[in-house]
Amino acid sequence: MLSNIRIVLVQTYHPGNIGASARAMKTMGLTDLVLVNPRRYPDPEASRLAAGAEDLVDQARVVASLEEAVADCVQVVGASARLRSLPLPHFDEPDAMAGELVGHAAHDPVALVFGRERFGLTNDEIRCCSHQVSIPANPDYGILNLAQAVQVLAYEAFKAWRRRPESDYRPARPAGERQPTREQLGHFHDHLGRVMQASGFLTQPHARTEAQLQALFARARPSRKELSLLRGLLGSLERHLPDK
Amino acid sequence: MLSNIRIVLVQTYHPGNIGASARAMKTMGLTDLVLVNPRRYPDPEASRLAAGAEDLVDQARVVASLEEAVADCVQVVGASARLRSLPLPHFDEPDAMAGELVGHAAHDPVALVFGRERFGLTNDEIRCCSHQVSIPANPDYGILNLAQAVQVLAYEAFKAWRRRPESDYRPARPAGERQPTREQLGHFHDHLGRVMQASGFLTQPHARTEAQLQALFARARPSRKELSLLRGLLGSLERHLPDK
Repeated sequence: MLSNIRIVLVQTYHPGNIGASARAMKTMGLTDLVLVNPRRYPDPEASRLAAGAEDLVDQARVVASLEEAVADCVQVVGASARLRSLPLPHFDEPDAMAGELVGHAAHDPVALVFGRERFGLTNDEIRCCSHQVSIPANPDYGILNLAQAVQVLAYEAFKAWRRRPESDYRPARPAGERQPTREQLGHFHDHLGRVMQASGFLTQPHARTEAQLQALFARARPSRKELSLLRGLLGSLERHLPDK
Repeated sequence: MLSNIRIVLVQTYHPGNIGASARAMKTMGLTDLVLVNPRRYPDPEASRLAAGAEDLVDQARVVASLEEAVADCVQVVGASARLRSLPLPHFDEPDAMAGELVGHAAHDPVALVFGRERFGLTNDEIRCCSHQVSIPANPDYGILNLAQAVQVLAYEAFKAWRRRPESDYRPARPAGERQPTREQLGHFHDHLGRVMQASGFLTQPHARTEAQLQALFARARPSRKELSLLRGLLGSLERHLPDK
């Protein structure tokens, strides 16, 4: 599915942006990079900025026109910093765009198209697109660097893919600590209550204060190990308190 | 609210990353940049990569420790490429993190902390944080460039802010074209039906074909102007067809 998502960079001026875009793509599981008439390619700057994604830069397909780059695609979304006069269907939320794009990518090639750093896409190139998308940004300063725009849209595509039931993405999670039982928590709260009284903090059982502290510890969700730490601390404190 | 969101970069090695991060921040409406012990600052590379966000770089506060950078914050989220052994509350979805962060930022300063390019944050620095967040990425190549990570998390923060009822964000939308009435659409469908018959495409009224084409045009949602174009085309075609 992700392999069906093509990133197309049109006449990129700075080779560093090609490398940084490749890196951005690879972190989000995308591999198909096509360059339309890049100003300078290959170039050491592209390799340098690619970091561990040099393979994507080296394997990029170079073509002479956007038409050629997307001929086999069923959806072509042009990333645009400004809205055009051509009323192409427009997504103003990248996550909505990504949901549709990934849906189509389940079956057919699709493309995300990025224009020149300064000039974006020409009107002829917009005509090669089926949709437009813009990245909502600061109205006073809203033009993202090219590779940053690639990163954001690739991130949304990867997110849309992860959230589909058929993707096999599993986040790396640290092994969960064992949780204490209600009974063990009860013993802890009793212990805490005794220490609060023996210390003089509470002169008699005070339901509200005890309930508030119980709620705080409930939010913290102490593991068995942590509860054990806390009980050990209470034990050490108790040794210094007068017997009730 | 957005002005309460601080971006903290810890011991950044490449000044270019400081500039690119400032640019990323500014596109997403953030302005408060703090540098903990940057290797080289000020530096022309930072200004160069900042593009139109040089003001943020120039106004960045420089401090000697992360503790100093976040002392006044009520929530400090460390961006981490890998999960730590310290069981800080962890967001594995940046959008969930951003929702909470922006909620707190309504009232108090909060911070997003980014570590060194190669080494991330030390355990002592993680202890300055209240939460951790990671950006879900390609399990085989998941380390984003520092400024790209700033861009993605700033993008999510801006999105969370936009979606709050009290934000005054309004997306720039092109003026809507006027929509045709049901009656005008009816005239168009009748016209199309006549042309389909007169051309021999349909030898008699065919409800299913007509309904399918009507549905297609319904999806396209032609404006009044576009409907006018279509009717003009049908009229030109009709002139060449035999009278029924």
